[in-house]
This record gives sequence, C-alpha cells and structure tokens, in this order.
Amino acid sequence: MCGIVGYIGYRQAFPIVINGLKRLEYRGYDSAGICIVNGDPFLAKQKGKVSDLEAFIGDRPLPGTIGIGHTRWATHGEPNDINAHPHESMNGKFILIHNGIIENYSLLRSKLEKRGYIFKSETDTEVLVNLIEYIYLKGNVTPEIAVRLALTKVVGAYGIVVINRDEPDTLIAARKGSPLVIGVGEGEYFIASDATPIVEFTKSVIFLNDNDVAVLQRNQMVLKTIYNQALEPNIQQLDIDIEAIEKGGYEHFMLKEIYEQPRSIHDTYRGRISSDPFDIHLGGLYSVLPNLTEAKRIILIGCGTSWHAALVGEYLIEDLARIPVEVEYASEFRYRNPIINKDDVVIAISQSGETADTLAAIRLAKEAGALVLGICNVVGSSIPRETHAGVYTHAGPEIGVASTKAFTAQVTVLIMMAILLGRRRGTLTEERYRELIREVTLVPDKIEKILQSEELVKVISERFKDSRNFLYLGRGYYFPVALEGALKLKEISYIHAEGYPAAEMKHGPIALIDDTMPVVVIAIKDSSYEKIVSNVQEVKARKGVIIAVVTEGDTTIKEMADYTIEIPEAGEIVGALLTVIPLQLLAYHIAVMRGCNVDQPRNLAKSVTVE
Amino acid sequence: MCGIVGYIGYRQAFPIVINGLKRLEYRGYDSAGICIVNGDPFLAKQKGKVSDLEAFIGDRPLPGTIGIGHTRWATHGEPNDINAHPHESMNGKFILIHNGIIENYSLLRSKLEKRGYIFKSETDTEVLVNLIEYIYLKGNVTPEIAVRLALTKVVGAYGIVVINRDEPDTLIAARKGSPLVIGVGEGEYFIASDATPIVEFTKSVIFLNDNDVAVLQRNQMVLKTIYNQALEPNIQQLDIDIEAIEKGGYEHFMLKEIYEQPRSIHDTYRGRISSDPFDIHLGGLYSVLPNLTEAKRIILIGCGTSWHAALVGEYLIEDLARIPVEVEYASEFRYRNPIINKDDVVIAISQSGETADTLAAIRLAKEAGALVLGICNVVGSSIPRETHAGVYTHAGPEIGVASTKAFTAQVTVLIMMAILLGRRRGTLTEERYRELIREVTLVPDKIEKILQSEELVKVISERFKDSRNFLYLGRGYYFPVALEGALKLKEISYIHAEGYPAAEMKHGPIALIDDTMPVVVIAIKDSSYEKIVSNVQEVKARKGVIIAVVTEGDTTIKEMADYTIEIPEAGEIVGALLTVIPLQLLAYHIAVMRGCNVDQPRNLAKSVTVE
Repeated sequence: MCGIVGYIGYRQAFPIVINGLKRLEYRGYDSAGICIVNGDPFLAKQKGKVSDLEAFIGDRPLPGTIGIGHTRWATHGEPNDINAHPHESMNGKFILIHNGIIENYSLLRSKLEKRGYIFKSETDTEVLVNLIEYIYLKGNVTPEIAVRLALTKVVGAYGIVVINRDEPDTLIAARKGSPLVIGVGEGEYFIASDATPIVEFTKSVIFLNDNDVAVLQRNQMVLKTIYNQALEPNIQQLDIDIEAIEKGGYEHFMLKEIYEQPRSIHDTYRGRISSDPFDIHLGGLYSVLPNLTEAKRIILIGCGTSWHAALVGEYLIEDLARIPVEVEYASEFRYRNPIINKDDVVIAISQSGETADTLAAIRLAKEAGALVLGICNVVGSSIPRETHAGVYTHAGPEIGVASTKAFTAQVTVLIMMAILLGRRRGTLTEERYRELIREVTLVPDKIEKILQSEELVKVISERFKDSRNFLYLGRGYYFPVALEGALKLKEISYIHAEGYPAAEMKHGPIALIDDTMPVVVIAIKDSSYEKIVSNVQEVKARKGVIIAVVTEGDTTIKEMADYTIEIPEAGEIVGALLTVIPLQLLAYHIAVMRGCNVDQPRNLAKSVTVE
Repeated sequence: MCGIVGYIGYRQAFPIVINGLKRLEYRGYDSAGICIVNGDPFLAKQKGKVSDLEAFIGDRPLPGTIGIGHTRWATHGEPNDINAHPHESMNGKFILIHNGIIENYSLLRSKLEKRGYIFKSETDTEVLVNLIEYIYLKGNVTPEIAVRLALTKVVGAYGIVVINRDEPDTLIAARKGSPLVIGVGEGEYFIASDATPIVEFTKSVIFLNDNDVAVLQRNQMVLKTIYNQALEPNIQQLDIDIEAIEKGGYEHFMLKEIYEQPRSIHDTYRGRISSDPFDIHLGGLYSVLPNLTEAKRIILIGCGTSWHAALVGEYLIEDLARIPVEVEYASEFRYRNPIINKDDVVIAISQSGETADTLAAIRLAKEAGALVLGICNVVGSSIPRETHAGVYTHAGPEIGVASTKAFTAQVTVLIMMAILLGRRRGTLTEERYRELIREVTLVPDKIEKILQSEELVKVISERFKDSRNFLYLGRGYYFPVALEGALKLKEISYIHAEGYPAAEMKHGPIALIDDTMPVVVIAIKDSSYEKIVSNVQEVKARKGVIIAVVTEGDTTIKEMADYTIEIPEAGEIVGALLTVIPLQLLAYHIAVMRGCNVDQPRNLAKSVTVE
C-alpha cells in the first residue's frame, strides 16, 4: 500500500526520489521520508504528504547519488513522524524502507528487547531493521547475508530497500508479497513499488518475484533468492505514457476519469467486438476458450469496487451463458476452505493487479487445479503474471483512489465475456447475439448524454451535501450499482451510505427512513419496474426523500420522486454501465462541496497490497 | 404484512375482533380499523395502534355478531385515517379489508374514474372494493359473483374479507399470495391472517390456498375457486400454546427471546442429535436424504436475518460436506433468470414461513424441477406446505420484530444439516463427527455464560447510545454475524450500522473511520486471528473506537480494544451462535436507552408477506 522509490547511479538522487514519491503518492500518503547517501546517509521524515516533507527539508542542499524514499499508509502505529519510514536500526548500521506487514513482529520484538534492543516507534518495520542489524553484528556476516537471514525469520509480506552504513554504495532490495520493480539504466538502477516513477528514465524493468533479493551497485546487479540461489534477471520493456497520468484540465483526477468513460469503455471493446460483421474476439482468452466454455462453475473474485463488478458479472454470465456463477470476496474465499474443482474457472478482478487478498486467492485456486483468469487494468502487474490467461481492461491509468473508469471497463469486459460464452454455448440466438453487440457499441454515446446531467446532479448535491446517511436501492443488474454508488459516496465524502437490494429494504433498513434520509433508487424500466415503483411508494409513505435514476420519458416515478435523473433507453445488459455514471457524479460533487480531498480520501490507498 | 381478523357466529363480534387485532399487531401497526354488523354495518378506523382505535371507540356499545378488523402496514399511501382499512365502496354496497398489493391498481383506478368513481384514499384497496361494487351494480350479479369476477381482473397479491350491505349475514374471504386461515367452530367461523387470534376459540382450521374463495354464513361455509370450481375443505388440527406468546417477566419480547436462546437452541436439536450413542437424525429430511446427499449444488434462499443464516449455512455446508453452496436474496433470485438444475437443491429459510419473496422463489425453483426444502419456524405456514420436505426450527413463537432466537435456531438446523451431510458424504472422520456433535450440545450452557455479560453490554451501550453510525466487522463465520449485528442495531435503534467482511474495510469503509465511529469487531481466536489483529490495528491507527468480541482469556486484542466482551472457547462451527448473543444485547440496550419501541420498530413488520 505504501510507495517505495530508490536510486543508485550518477545523477543527483534527491530530485529523482522526491518526484518519484509524488508519482506514487496515490498509494499512500499519511507520512513520507527519504534517505540520501553522500558518504554518510542523511535521513528526513515527516507526517503528512510529500509536499510537507519537501517544505520540511526546504532549501537545504542534499547532494548524493544514492537515495531512497517512502510514502506510508499506516498499518502498525498511527501516522506520525516517528512511525514514518525510513527506519534506522538502533546502532545506526541499517536504514530501511518497507511496504507490507510483518505478522510475527510482536514475537520478534520481544526477543530483540531481551537482547537489549530499544524501540523508538510502534512499527513492524523497526523490528525488521533491528533484526537485520542484530544478525549482522552478532553473526559477523556481510550486510547482504544479514538481510537474507533476517528475511527467512519473517512471517508476512514485504517489499524493502536497505542502506548499510558500512557499505554505503550498495542498495539491497527484496520482495515477498509487496511488489517491487527495478529499472535498469546504464550505470544506474531505479527501484519502485510500481513503474510510474521509473518510466521517464528507462523502459527496461525487472519485476522482482517473491523471495527475490537484488544487490545493486552502480555498475552491477546481483539477483538471488533469500536462500542464496542465483537468479537470471528477466528484463522486460514497458510501454507506459506518462502524459496519460496528468489531470488534463479537470479539477480532480476522479472527475477526469469519470469523463473519460466514453473513451475508456470504447478502448476496452475496440478491436474486440465488431458489428460489421458481427464478431467478438478476446485474444487473451484464446488459449483457454474450450475450457472456459465447458466450465461447470465460474467463481468471480474481487475486493471493493471489483467485487461489485463481479456481482454484475454473475448476472451477465448466468443470464447470457447459463453457467452457474459464484461471487466471492477474495479475503473470505482464501480463508474459508473453499470448494474448487478442476472444471471450475476462477476469474480474479482487480484494477491494480496487485490486490493482496485477490493474489492470494488465485494462488489458492491454482494449487487446487482450477483454470485461473484475470481481469486487470495494470499491464504487467502481478495478477496477469500469475494467472493462466486473462483480459486487460484498457481503461488507462486510474489515479483517483475512488475507482470509476476501471469499474466500467471491468463490466465491459464481463459483458463481452458473457456474450462470447453465450454465443459458444448456444444459449443466445443469432438475433439476440447481434442485438447485444449493438447494445455495447451504443454505450459511449449514451454515457456522453448522461454526463450532460452534471448540472442537475450539482443541484441535488447542494441539497444533500450535509446529509449524514444515504441509502441506495436497486434490483437485479442495478443492485450492484446501488452498492457501488454507496461505496463511492462513502469513500470520498465520508457520508455513511449503504446499498441494498430494493426488496430487502423491508427486512430492516426501512427502519432508518425518515424525512432526513435521502434514498437513491435506480428505477429503470425493466421487468421488475412495477416492483421498484412499489418500493418507491413504501419509502414515500414514510416521508423518505427519493433521488431516482429513471429511463428517459418515465412519468410514474417522476410524479413520486423528489429528483429524477434520466438515462437513455438501453438493453439491461449495459444498464450498469449507464446508471453508475450519475452516482459517480453525485458522490464527486457532494465530496467537493464538503471540502473533501476527492482524489486522496483519508485512510484509503489506491491499491491494497496488504491483506 | 397487515393483519386481518373476521368473525361470524353467535358471540359478540367486537371483543373477538379487537383482541384478535392486538394478537396480530406484530404484523403491522400504523393504522387499524373495524366494521361490526348489526343490521347495518358500523365502521371505525384510525391512524395508530389498535389501542388508539379502542380509545377512539371508547365506551360506545357496538353490538353485533359479525365483524371484521384490520391492522395496516402501509404499502400504497401513507399511514392515516383515510388510508386505513376497512374501505367502503363509493355507493356503500361493499366494505373490505385487504392484505397484499394490487399491482395494476393504477390502470383499474383510471378505468373506474372514467366510469364516474371518485376515490377518497390513495390505496389500492379502495380500487378493489369499488371494482367489486361496479361489477355488482353494472352486472346485476350476486355479491359472491361480483367478488370472484373482480378478483380475476386483479394482478397482485391479496387476502381479503368482504361485507355486503345487501346480504349483511355473509362474509366472503379470498386469498392469493397473502395467507388466510379460517377457524371452524359450531355455528361460527373465524378468519385471520394467521392462527394466533383463532386458537383460543378453536383448533380446527382451514388454510386457504391461492385463488380460493370462502363464502361464510353462521351455519354454512361454501369453498370454491374464483373460477367457481367447488372445493372440498381440508380441516386441520392446530397445536399452538397461547401462553407461549406472553412476555413472561421481561420488559420486552425481544429481551425475553434473547434469553430464551439456550432453551430454544436446545429445543431445536433435542431428539435430533445425541452424543450417546453419537447420532444425528432429521426426520423431516428422511424422504429426500439420498437426493440431498448427492446434490451437485445447494442454493440457500432467504431475506433479512434468514439471509444471514443462509450465509452461515454456506460456510458450514461447504466446509463440512464439501457441496458448493450459493446464497441468494429471495427477491433477487426470483427476478433474475436464475440457473436451477434438476440435481440442485434449493433450501428456503424463513421464520414466518410466509415471506412473500421467499415463497415466490421456491415456486420458481419447483417449476424448474429442483428439490425444494424449507427451514421454518411457524408450523403449518405456507413455505412448509409448499416445499417437498424440510426442518422446523422449534424456536417457539417469535414476537419481537427483530429476529433473535429464530436466527440462532436456523443456524442450529444448518449446523445439523451440514454435519449430517458431511457424515453421509464421508467428508468427516468419525472423530471429527463426534467432536462436532459434542460442540453443538455444549452451546446452551455457553450462551448462559455469555448472557451474564449483559451488565458490561449496558455500560458499552450507555457510552455509544448517541452514536450516529456503527461499523461491524468479522471474517469467515463471523462475517454474517457482523451483518446480523448491524441489522439488529439498524432495525430497533435507527442508528445506521453496516456490516463488512473485515478485510473489505480497506476497500472503502475505512474512509468513514474517525474518533466518533464505533467499530464492533468479532475477533475470535481462529485461523484468521492474526489478520483480524491487523484490522484492529488499522482501525486504531485512525483513532476508531473498538468494541471487540473475543475469546475468553485473549490478551492481544484486549490491549488494543476500548471494550472487550468474552466468549467461551468453542469450535468455529458454533461460533456464530455464540458471538451473535452480545450483539443482540448491544442493539437491545442501545435501543431501550434511546427510547425506541424495541418490539415494534417503526416502519417494520414481523413477517413480510408483500413483495
């Protein structure tokens, strides 16, 4: 969850590290710190954002061509100066930055305390750096051996970079669970928790694997496992456009990403479906298509917004391809002795491709012999590298912590998969198949139209910005949309919003409804329209306030609701893509009006790479 | 959802009707009304509870040996005097009480308006009574024919009782979707939406089926379908103890029912499992056991609290019997073209056995050829009558609207089913089988012990009674418990509480956490204990307040949490039964301290018999 940057080479390290941290700030930003080596290492760390650290350092010159930096997302100990990284060992021999969680830190800490170690912070990281030093001094071994031995004692996840005062011209990096990328230059190396800080310098990268250790000097890299087995580096070429991660005129990344959706959805299906002739082709699935088509059961796995996309996927695949689908929270799946058969297909959904729980779940599924596929946005991330096959979402980099375009891209991929499977399994007539493809190609224009309702959404936001609670209701395809709408509001405005299947309201949540409770209802004209009309009446009978997302031209709901936002008519398989747009805008504007930091909401990180 | 009472015979009708309404008040209580026939019908109705109606009538003598009464739970139009039942037709010919929803009321209403009908209320019921009158006057037919013809025009659900001024010595009752029971006396008949108002007078009852019409006179009952096909009445004998529905010394039914759980759980497994010799026997499943054992997939269906029991059931059955389980909201399942194969088993869970969405779902599953089973509490209710087989929970009548002992009884049945299936499928060793049975028999004593923590729960309730929001977190078996704990609080205290799988917190809800947000964590020592410790630390790092349910003797969580409630050590298959108890008590005491009506929370009905 935290961000790591490291540099060793011939350039000045400080600007590289500090700019890298800014690029990574979306991964965690409750405190930040750096260490620059110029003979002796200089260390500075500070609670707050990277800009706070910069202000703290001020104009002080920090020469040096070796450096590391870190932005933190707290797991052990609250965000403050002391808990910030880098952490230094008690006798000052080692300085370390760390992503991940050391699970047995409490045991290790008490052992070290018995041996005289005193701790300044509450972090698990300080335990690790002291353990390394203890082994180094006690065992009289090289720094590299000390790092490797220490890591064999550790239970948990880590991505680390280590500086040693006795050999200051060396950086040691290692990973297990938390991603690390090494950029390979000429006479220089870069290290980062993802490629964004690196690409402006080099496109040649090495993704570290679990239990890898890299010992970096200016002109040499030695790669091995923590068990001292030598490894051959696998250098890959990246293709990332740094321009794409700028805000481009919008006030926030999130708003930019909401407005990008007509294009990102188009990018996601471009070259994959065509309506002349009618065709659908997902290259990444080609090799596994026979198995996928014959799957007895599909298990969709995700966390947060990706889990909502999975719920939409369940309805799509069951409806169009008639394969039973089970949706699981990745975190629950991996710990509950799940049933995975050899003819089951597991599909993991993750924007970042690094979500720790999702990664662990797919490893479990692979061990059980299932075919494991991925739907991810970040090319070259861990999930695509560890699955048998998959489909990229092509939404482009998503910087806003609250996912928008990644969600609609995931749903677009799931729609294509469901149509493809339905076609191959013979559960769709030729006519329906063509109609479904046509529906997908009409989505971008319809979203353009929905985006025009932003002014109306602003009016609604103004009225409800001080509400303390929201309910979101939907049925069928719109139940996951209700969950997603509520999650957006919760994430960025800190209003307690909850989504429910509309009919479940009567089994409890209706007790919350009074004249202060706004209820967002997705009330599209479909087969259960009459039922949702009844639900709206039940809310109104209890004086609840209704904000309804309705089909263009609807009059019944309009007479009852306090506010209505219209959606162009469309087939229900694309309904989630359309109806989620006004809910994204609603969350965005309420959060802005409340003065919240929309792109970097408190407590949240973009990519949850700890469990 | 509403309650219906009717009487025709030789006794004074008014006391029978008004006492019957009080018995039924748990089904709906936003307004009430009666009609007593003494030559001319006298009608009185009033917003509020049955006691408000009684006060309104005061000492006025209301002689008459025919009468009907109704308590309403609003579906169309807000609760007020005019919308209360009975409803009278425009020309006064018919007086009617109605449970259920007429879905095409808007179309029927505009047709009647074109024919000169003027409406006083916003209800669908007034549309029905005027439709009957219109057919009666226009068609010059008997009242019975008018009722039957009108019902053929109606889309939706109803249980109705009709009085006609031209033939005042006749009651006409009909049902579709909403339950009706007729009590058969000597020279008298009783009608009610369930048997509670009837049993003190007669145990001989007839359950009306869909499309049945009963024409009742003092000495004669004619039973037919709305299509005029004659039917033979099927008189059954009831066995309900009226004493059992008294409060018995507790301040509220809910508290009484919480404290009954050691006994109700024991009642649920008594005679079904034994540990000397080790045996498990569920008589209601005997005939279907081979099919159930060979099931390819089990689909568990429920609403509200029963849906939470189903989630626990999923973990149990997958863990112990290794059959894939899918859990569905009944309301979602029935409308989304679900996949049901012939070797699937569908199990419906419902306390009342009358939940409309669950009933509709099992009908769908039966049509698809699946074996359909029920887990219900109310003997003789619709779900047990419509399923192929099933298991009663034996929790006794549950009066508190917020379900407590019905939930733990449902989970107890699911535990027994999972053990039985695991035993038959050979997925349990003899040793584990015995250990699991032993665990179940230890539950009542452990719950007695947990109930002793009530004073501590009161202290916690006092501190948090004014909180506006709560989060509930759990993993594995404790995730559904978190959902159930949150639902209890929401239902009776109107505090917005939400349950989450603990690991999902980082994917959104953590943004809500600050020093005003109490977080209830179920942190039992099991295989994911280390993970939940990390989650607790993440909350504490953001200054959240932790109320933890922990294993007796735990020290790690105790050091971090603000409050801890201890649970005796137990196997995780019974963990849900134990950990839910303090959460029930917490919701109860917070609601009482906030001055809420615990047994009859606003907007809620005990048994949701409309969709």
